[in-house]
Amino acid sequence: MLIKPNDFVDENLVEISDFRFEHIKKILKLKISDTIKTGVLNGKIGAGKITKIDEKSVKLEILLDKEPPPINPSILFCALPRPKVFRRVLLNAVCFGVKEIHFFQAFKVEKSYWQSPFLSQDSINKIVENALMQSVDTILPEIYFHRLFKNFVEDVFYKKTQKFPCFVFHPTAENLRIFDCNSKKCGFVIGPEGGFTYYEIELFLKNNAKIASLGDRILRVEQAVCSVLGFNYSGNLQ
Amino acid sequence: MLIKPNDFVDENLVEISDFRFEHIKKILKLKISDTIKTGVLNGKIGAGKITKIDEKSVKLEILLDKEPPPINPSILFCALPRPKVFRRVLLNAVCFGVKEIHFFQAFKVEKSYWQSPFLSQDSINKIVENALMQSVDTILPEIYFHRLFKNFVEDVFYKKTQKFPCFVFHPTAENLRIFDCNSKKCGFVIGPEGGFTYYEIELFLKNNAKIASLGDRILRVEQAVCSVLGFNYSGNLQ
Repeated sequence: MLIKPNDFVDENLVEISDFRFEHIKKILKLKISDTIKTGVLNGKIGAGKITKIDEKSVKLEILLDKEPPPINPSILFCALPRPKVFRRVLLNAVCFGVKEIHFFQAFKVEKSYWQSPFLSQDSINKIVENALMQSVDTILPEIYFHRLFKNFVEDVFYKKTQKFPCFVFHPTAENLRIFDCNSKKCGFVIGPEGGFTYYEIELFLKNNAKIASLGDRILRVEQAVCSVLGFNYSGNLQ
Repeated sequence: MLIKPNDFVDENLVEISDFRFEHIKKILKLKISDTIKTGVLNGKIGAGKITKIDEKSVKLEILLDKEPPPINPSILFCALPRPKVFRRVLLNAVCFGVKEIHFFQAFKVEKSYWQSPFLSQDSINKIVENALMQSVDTILPEIYFHRLFKNFVEDVFYKKTQKFPCFVFHPTAENLRIFDCNSKKCGFVIGPEGGFTYYEIELFLKNNAKIASLGDRILRVEQAVCSVLGFNYSGNLQ
């Protein structure tokens, strides 16, 4: 359960009446005295004990005594995927603990994707909160959108990636695997369905990126994201 | 495009009229002389050139001269997930090139999951064919279902995992990562949402498995599958 600053009615007491209340009552079916893992947005985690529950709201007495799990210090750069996939990519990245995510325009990104309701702040907040709850985390990620490819690469990307290795994944990069990367902090660039154009790859390579491969198979965008972040998280973040 | 033995009308000529025809005509919008990556079930891959397309079917002249991509020799053992997740897990595993997949009952697997229409042979074939097309592969995986946990672990699992390292993922295994595994062929055991019981973990450990962690975060089943297989594929299969 993710608690927000304005849920507090007293120092260690919160009252919730929105969809989180519904979740506690109808899905988890919790009763008075039951406890639930709880964390406060951008703060500590711990336990919440239900002290009152009725038709309208739930009150929790909370004890937050632990730090949230370590973050994944890497940065994810992802060509804006189609809306359904965007949702899953964002969810996956946040679940894997990434705290900085950039979505950008590329040649094979359909312009209509930018009009998706999933990109509204409300929708993003919901996806992010879900992912934080899933991974018992409280730290909000920073999410950026870039609608001009060249500006994004030459300005934002170039400046962001000065101090750590950064990989752009492309099927032609047969012999370079991120396995060779021993850095805990990396940048990972995932292309659109259909891949980057030659010009796009070249521009990334001119601006700090190295080319890398995820193997011989063409992966879906969300599979590539999980594969890279899971590898980075399980393998390098020891 | 995945070709099956009974699509052949001549040695190098196939005719297709099912959903694959619809896909070629309506989604890919291909015309006469266009080519499409093609492979024959359990055989080679190459190109197919459209020689005829009308309202009912498409004819392709095919040249299959390449081997499908290398397989992922690992075995995936996964507690049967709820139907929607089952679909994604199967899709992901096949996309990552795994050729042997076992789904099994565990304490926290709801019995109703076994009644899902997604588990019908028809549905499985569709998911598998989609995944093979996505990853430009032709080799069908073997998929097994085990409804008795103890029999599965003591009999099937024990016999299958004699000759390579096998990892059961559990959040308490804080210090053991599969990063230490240098084997190309591994067994990976993914638990149900809610995790394995103590008894279940113990039984796996008594029957060849080592305990391992995917990091401090609780991952969704499909995230764990991608994370493990992606790591295995990118990292170890060099």
